[in-house]
Amino acid sequence: MEQLKQRILNEGIVISDEILKVDSFLNHQIDPLLMHDIGAEFARRFARRRVTKILTLESSGIAPALMTGLLLRVPVIFAKKRIPSTLTQGFYRASVFSYTKQETTELIVAERFLTPADTILIIDDFLANGEAARGLTDIVTRSGASLAGIGVVIEKAFQPGGALLRERGLRVDSLVRIRRLAPDGIEFVDE
Amino acid sequence: MEQLKQRILNEGIVISDEILKVDSFLNHQIDPLLMHDIGAEFARRFARRRVTKILTLESSGIAPALMTGLLLRVPVIFAKKRIPSTLTQGFYRASVFSYTKQETTELIVAERFLTPADTILIIDDFLANGEAARGLTDIVTRSGASLAGIGVVIEKAFQPGGALLRERGLRVDSLVRIRRLAPDGIEFVDE
Repeated sequence: MEQLKQRILNEGIVISDEILKVDSFLNHQIDPLLMHDIGAEFARRFARRRVTKILTLESSGIAPALMTGLLLRVPVIFAKKRIPSTLTQGFYRASVFSYTKQETTELIVAERFLTPADTILIIDDFLANGEAARGLTDIVTRSGASLAGIGVVIEKAFQPGGALLRERGLRVDSLVRIRRLAPDGIEFVDE
Repeated sequence: MEQLKQRILNEGIVISDEILKVDSFLNHQIDPLLMHDIGAEFARRFARRRVTKILTLESSGIAPALMTGLLLRVPVIFAKKRIPSTLTQGFYRASVFSYTKQETTELIVAERFLTPADTILIIDDFLANGEAARGLTDIVTRSGASLAGIGVVIEKAFQPGGALLRERGLRVDSLVRIRRLAPDGIEFVDE
């Protein structure tokens, strides 16, 4: 997605060879018009998969997931990292390890929002080690719903998450894939 | 906003006389089409205020804020509750107490996204005691930006936040105001 590459090149800050900061348009300040275009691209790519719900996790996945849901006209569920005080009925939980934060967090999804009749599209902002995507796919599997695939805004292709998910036969669609992060530049996988 | 009242009446669950659960369309599962209509309503109400940025907080404020930003064509900033590992430059912080969770959380906003040239519209899902709105208005004040007002999806008018903010001369626009929560029903303020 050329527009997204340009924003990453113009505004992305390479913090280390593993960490890219894109907080001016994606995960602190958000550009709603870019998110709309991202949603339109995911909607186009998954248009034939009969998606009934989008699943993401708080907080940075919400914006691209919401715009995809708007354009596919389906509800969006965001997994919570803590059990809400109002979640009194059953819920799925999955533990995921964040390498960036070096800690384990939980993903919580109310059972009643996922049924065997659903076809779920998972959306997230970043794919690196694939822990969050693994946790979300585990929850989808346990619910009995079908999984249409995983839509990722930015994949760090030099980290193993994308390969691990694709080896499992899952469809992973990343809008941009980064081959290498370095102080002198950001290299994309040619596609 | 009649459509929102109907959704609250049809799907809202009264957990206690202070807590309303609306997790089927607002803060766990999200209805993107409803959020779009909510965004359109906030955009209409604040159309003449020359808003340059929207400010909200993670996570449940993001959806209504993003749609408002889409329709006003301005960026959306969401305050974080933890300092991100990538936030290496200056940031504002405000402590807010959540009565629902009975704990103090921090709101963090990178300094570089708020300038004295900005006019900020604060958007949030709920207004109860007004702590989150107070924290966000404090950050706007410290940045030197102007405040256009506060847009709230659901105001619990029986709690003091709305009155406290309006007494300070702030414009608070709530799409629905709830007068009373009871097991036998939800009463709205007539408007």
